Amino acid sequence: MRLLIKSGGEEAVPEWRAAFAGIAPHLDVRWWDDRDVDPATVDFALVWDPEPGRLAALPKLRAIFGAGAGVDYILRDPLLPAAVPLVRCVPPEATQRMGEFAVWAVLSLNKDARRMAIAQAGARWDAFDPPFAAAERTVGVMGLGAMGMRAAQMIAGLGIPVVGWSRTRKMLPGIETFSGDGERDAFLARCGVLVCLLPATPETAGILAAPLFAKLPRGAGLVQLGRGMQQSTRDIVAALDSGQLSGAVLDVFEQEPPPGDSPIWSHPKIIVTPHAASTPSRQERARYVAGCIAGLERGEALPNLYSPERGY
Amino acid sequence: MRLLIKSGGEEAVPEWRAAFAGIAPHLDVRWWDDRDVDPATVDFALVWDPEPGRLAALPKLRAIFGAGAGVDYILRDPLLPAAVPLVRCVPPEATQRMGEFAVWAVLSLNKDARRMAIAQAGARWDAFDPPFAAAERTVGVMGLGAMGMRAAQMIAGLGIPVVGWSRTRKMLPGIETFSGDGERDAFLARCGVLVCLLPATPETAGILAAPLFAKLPRGAGLVQLGRGMQQSTRDIVAALDSGQLSGAVLDVFEQEPPPGDSPIWSHPKIIVTPHAASTPSRQERARYVAGCIAGLERGEALPNLYSPERGY
Ligand SMILES: NC(=O)c1ccc[n+]([C@@H]2O[C@H](COP(=O)([O-])OP(=O)(O)OC[C@H]3O[C@@H](n4cnc5c(N)ncnc54)[C@H](OP(=O)(O)O)[C@@H]3O)[C@@H](O)[C@H]2O)c1
Ligand SMILES: NC(=O)c1ccc[n+]([C@@H]2O[C@H](COP(=O)([O-])OP(=O)(O)OC[C@H]3O[C@@H](n4cnc5c(N)ncnc54)[C@H](OP(=O)(O)O)[C@@H]3O)[C@@H](O)[C@H]2O)c1
Repeated sequence: MRLLIKSGGEEAVPEWRAAFAGIAPHLDVRWWDDRDVDPATVDFALVWDPEPGRLAALPKLRAIFGAGAGVDYILRDPLLPAAVPLVRCVPPEATQRMGEFAVWAVLSLNKDARRMAIAQAGARWDAFDPPFAAAERTVGVMGLGAMGMRAAQMIAGLGIPVVGWSRTRKMLPGIETFSGDGERDAFLARCGVLVCLLPATPETAGILAAPLFAKLPRGAGLVQLGRGMQQSTRDIVAALDSGQLSGAVLDVFEQEPPPGDSPIWSHPKIIVTPHAASTPSRQERARYVAGCIAGLERGEALPNLYSPERGY
Repeated sequence: MRLLIKSGGEEAVPEWRAAFAGIAPHLDVRWWDDRDVDPATVDFALVWDPEPGRLAALPKLRAIFGAGAGVDYILRDPLLPAAVPLVRCVPPEATQRMGEFAVWAVLSLNKDARRMAIAQAGARWDAFDPPFAAAERTVGVMGLGAMGMRAAQMIAGLGIPVVGWSRTRKMLPGIETFSGDGERDAFLARCGVLVCLLPATPETAGILAAPLFAKLPRGAGLVQLGRGMQQSTRDIVAALDSGQLSGAVLDVFEQEPPPGDSPIWSHPKIIVTPHAASTPSRQERARYVAGCIAGLERGEALPNLYSPERGY
């Protein structure tokens, strides 16, 4: 069996090979642009941002594995073969890391870690009263999929009240849930901190902008861990400057990296992180992909499949 | 009944009065230096850092309330009346805040938040592989009192392995515990991240120094939330520079504020926070003190008493 990889560049191939060698020794792991590979011999592809048409040119492809949980970078390919299952990469370590990152980001806002970092940079002892007690600020999680559900549970486990919102209704012990566009405003009115873990779809494009911020309680916090196409940086900065938002942790951006002269870098209310919320290691991803392939061989269904009907 | 307050300065007295008015209207709340107060009419004192001899000059004092969980700033008074119970201030909000802060600090080290803050300050997109997966790094909590126990439980709740150490053995579900000096090195050998929540006592003075760091696994993280007298800043910096420690979050210091030219401020591996791990609000402390006084009136025992035998 042959696996073609485009993730991390050609220099990452030895590491991928070593990762697969121990767990799937029968798998021939090759670089995406390896000219010695006959396209008709490729069974699987593990990709991020493939050139349009390249996947369609692999006639025997049995499954496409995304290199991350979001597959928007693969869906850009207008010739993506619709008949080949597309598996989102969601190893258990990735949801664990995302949950931890969401916890870290929410606590960073509740304790104003940005203010503490600015004081440290100026060698200043800036003792201030704690801005928010956890129980006073309900956290709302938008998107209750693999990532959002784990984040919601980990935040609730700290004794913080949590509400959630998704397309179809979810049942989560201890978490009040809302669903669909009809319940969106009722959800937003409850969010002392809003955590976005929505996928990139036409429906979620530009969702984090002034009209949505206006539905939040004044002084809410924002944690954006979804995709940059969902936000208006300009509106986020305006909402922070007006006090409608009190702070933001942004992990994804309209343009990555953001331009050097973007106001986000030096804004006193924004914590910038480099799309780092949940990056599983190559070892972890190899284990996940090898497990999916082994399951397929045993006749099991592939997990975390992209659905063209839903668009995510 | 009369309560004398020295915490937050005279300007904080109106806020204290307002906080007590709703919950203990019979309590006459006065500023520590109020010249109109006859010392023989004072029933209770709520203090931080009282001038030596002042508490001993209150002949009818029934209880002393510390303004924080650590009472080392009160014990400095050589004339402290030993017969008057000394109550450490541990409202439920304080342990909650401490647990959250410990979680935030551990995650800040596991995700290298200091590196992300330095990159943001330079408007640089510094995407790096996640340095540590939570499960790979056991967190060890030194001190399993009101604060340490809550911190240990909250960290363990995130799926992070936790071990703990205290003077007398504790039983905590899911947490392996060690006790006493005899088990200290075995405990330290397990700590991928060490969280210190010990009180300031002669035994804990200078404990966070080179000999202890040498017992930790190489590359361990340090979170110091106890008291500055427990640490050697010089040894912490040396251990970070040698790689024996990989990062530190320091909330307390030998001198507070630390001198402007201290190496801690700009060190790339140190996150400095301004003794902010757990500061309950005046409202929360007033509720706690009023509750203790009401319990005393009903004949109940005072909680969280300082013990002269133990020294904390
Ligand atoms: N920053 C990072 O490092 C990073 C890492 C990984 C993932 N991510 C982002 O996180 C996203 C979520 O990942 P996941 O694995 O949790 O995806 P998922 O399992 O597909 O879950 C998506 C969630 O969003 C909800 N949703 C989708 N469209 C919606 C709409 N129009 N209105 C309301 N709810 C909607 C879904 O509702 P239903 O439950 O009803 O289907 C579901 O709960 C990814 O797509 C990616 O963009 C970011
Ligand atoms: N940074 C901040 O903002 C902040 C805020 C609040 C408190 N604090 C610090 O946190 C400390 C702990 O507060 P707490 O309320 O948890 O105190 P506590 O309830 O008295 O607990 C102290 C813990 O330390 C253990 N211990 C004491 N001496 C020891 C020794 N020589 N060897 C081993 N273990 C020892 C005790 O063991 P046993 O269980 O066997 O008695 C106990 O588990 C305070 O004293 C203060 O310094 C800092």
